[in-house]
Amino acid sequence: MKIVVLKFGGTSVGTIEKIKTVAEIINEYKRKKFKVIVVSSAMSGVTNELIKKSKGISDNFSDVEYDVLVSSGEQIACSLIAGRLNHIGHKSRSWLAWQIPIFTKGVHKNSRIYTINKKKILKYLEDGGTPIVTGFQGINEHERVSTIGRGGSDATAIVLAKFFKAQRCIIYTDVEGVYTTDPNKTNKARKIKEISYEEMLEMASLGAKVMQPVSIQDARLNRINIEVKSSFVKKPGTLITKRSNIINNKIITGISSTQNDSKVSLIGVKDKPGVAASIFKPLSKNSINVDMVVQNISANGKETDLTFTIKTDDLKKTKKIIESNKNIRFKKLLLKKDVAKISIIGVGMITTPGVTFRMFQTLANKKINIQVISTSEIKISVLIDKRSVKKALIALHKEFKLDN
Amino acid sequence: MKIVVLKFGGTSVGTIEKIKTVAEIINEYKRKKFKVIVVSSAMSGVTNELIKKSKGISDNFSDVEYDVLVSSGEQIACSLIAGRLNHIGHKSRSWLAWQIPIFTKGVHKNSRIYTINKKKILKYLEDGGTPIVTGFQGINEHERVSTIGRGGSDATAIVLAKFFKAQRCIIYTDVEGVYTTDPNKTNKARKIKEISYEEMLEMASLGAKVMQPVSIQDARLNRINIEVKSSFVKKPGTLITKRSNIINNKIITGISSTQNDSKVSLIGVKDKPGVAASIFKPLSKNSINVDMVVQNISANGKETDLTFTIKTDDLKKTKKIIESNKNIRFKKLLLKKDVAKISIIGVGMITTPGVTFRMFQTLANKKINIQVISTSEIKISVLIDKRSVKKALIALHKEFKLDN
Repeated sequence: MKIVVLKFGGTSVGTIEKIKTVAEIINEYKRKKFKVIVVSSAMSGVTNELIKKSKGISDNFSDVEYDVLVSSGEQIACSLIAGRLNHIGHKSRSWLAWQIPIFTKGVHKNSRIYTINKKKILKYLEDGGTPIVTGFQGINEHERVSTIGRGGSDATAIVLAKFFKAQRCIIYTDVEGVYTTDPNKTNKARKIKEISYEEMLEMASLGAKVMQPVSIQDARLNRINIEVKSSFVKKPGTLITKRSNIINNKIITGISSTQNDSKVSLIGVKDKPGVAASIFKPLSKNSINVDMVVQNISANGKETDLTFTIKTDDLKKTKKIIESNKNIRFKKLLLKKDVAKISIIGVGMITTPGVTFRMFQTLANKKINIQVISTSEIKISVLIDKRSVKKALIALHKEFKLDN
Repeated sequence: MKIVVLKFGGTSVGTIEKIKTVAEIINEYKRKKFKVIVVSSAMSGVTNELIKKSKGISDNFSDVEYDVLVSSGEQIACSLIAGRLNHIGHKSRSWLAWQIPIFTKGVHKNSRIYTINKKKILKYLEDGGTPIVTGFQGINEHERVSTIGRGGSDATAIVLAKFFKAQRCIIYTDVEGVYTTDPNKTNKARKIKEISYEEMLEMASLGAKVMQPVSIQDARLNRINIEVKSSFVKKPGTLITKRSNIINNKIITGISSTQNDSKVSLIGVKDKPGVAASIFKPLSKNSINVDMVVQNISANGKETDLTFTIKTDDLKKTKKIIESNKNIRFKKLLLKKDVAKISIIGVGMITTPGVTFRMFQTLANKKINIQVISTSEIKISVLIDKRSVKKALIALHKEFKLDN
């Protein structure tokens, strides 16, 4: 069977008219003789409306019932899509997670799918039906509805693609694909035709909102080709695939930037083993994500400076933790809001020397000061003043030949 | 176990604040050491909103998917009630029909519950939990969600009361109980303390909107005491029970009236067997409900007049059917809109002679002309001019001592 998994996000099924368009998209794949498995999110706004209700009921609403509550959103969307396909003459039905079933493990609100019973869906596909599967949910060992936190319906789609050995998993959303950089920041941004899982992972982690890193990682591990495209315009999207599939002579694939970062510097920290741990342990316990970390070389062999970045939302909490924790010793605490991280990403940099230099030189030419640097195999990130982000993006976009 | 089934209608769970009140009501029964099974409808407005969506998708929306769609409404309400009970410290959880399961038979949108697997709920009750069950739905032999048409969540509550041998089934709604007559028509209307199943059946069939006849009949067959009361005010409601439980010295329990009736008279119909059938068969086939039927005694042994009432909405259709059907022969067709049926109901009339006379005399005194009469063991209905309904109601309410 030539199977394709189509996943529609909340905005793609956001109105009755859009659901009709979704049915037409599915219809096109049917015409091309594909067996289509559809995964749908809740209509945009529905989930938030339900969450609002739960907050009205309790500021500590049960996680178990939360899953029952919000999972109704996908149920609604799936029945409407199936109903529309029936209307235009297709054999189709909604498949609620418990009917398949899709089995999850882990805590409520944040479960993960660990297996799917393929039997019924396979039979249904063989009989010519188009199953519309509720995304974002499953049932656990207690037969309770459980939602999968991160990744949501994308994760459902990728797991289905894996279990049914789909040729491709297509994520329909409200953007046309993955861009070289945020199109809101420069009109030079252009759609990327193909991107490797690894690059996409870095892009996603660094703020590209197209897909959750966890879903990309899942696709990577299972070698599932993902296409991200818009359900509103008929244009090719971005193919996320393995490196060897990509013929790309660009060194850098994309540039991303994050905002609302803050820099924390502890001056005069004892330079001995265990000091960094003593600082990061209480932060981690309080769910504060520490991002870039730099420790200077100790000048006198006794004391050093430690710098790291966090989300500005966590700044107050971080300050309190550091100042109140007696195990953390330092001479001076410096806090700086309004910094931003800008990153260039590309598998090409592995084989191309001098990328770091070119990045630094480009920023220097624009008189942009680099405050912290952090690198990975396929990524270089620098911390700069927030006000210089746009200028830096445009300059780097040009430097690495992403403009055309 | 001292079990009570509490059913909350759409208006009773219509807002977050009202759901909090519902949790308090449940809490009171828990304090009185009852094991409580809760059945909830969808929050008022939710079901209509979903139906509107289905109509946007197709003017012929699949019945199967319709059931998937609308059943989400009860799922939402149940999770919120359970969440609120958790919030105030109770062990409680939502039970979706498929989790119990509640099994249905029959066509989609109009199934009926035929059995319930008691095991899990019973265990949950024994463990001190308060199950919140989705009303109005079950699953059928194909493991599809199916909704029960008439009676809806009331029917679910009564079936649960029957299966779990509940001491009482309490229907919480937005009225305080069953009234002697429509309080909108006379301020003399008063709440009935106790009413027999049979009387309630007549009242419901005749327009009292408190409960669907099918649910009352179900309760009657299973001898389940039902209390209808308001979730908004703390007052006793109306108990619906078997005749022998009622100490009621009133002859008449209630008076009801219907509106939007029309009268159809066929003059000069052949007086021979099969004629009435030839008229009512095509009407029945077209789902036209024929209510009161009177056939005059044939004066000449050859011809007679036939009169019946229908809903005014069906008048045009009825006219067309009668005039176009060549099997129906008559001399003249008379149609009359703006008639109304007024009925007095009470088991007391079985043992009390002269009730019919008193009714007719009362109307005669008010110069109200009776057009058609129809009686049952515990009910007398008359057809009168629509404009006289209020006057007739008030006079009869006084005559049969329902005013005080």
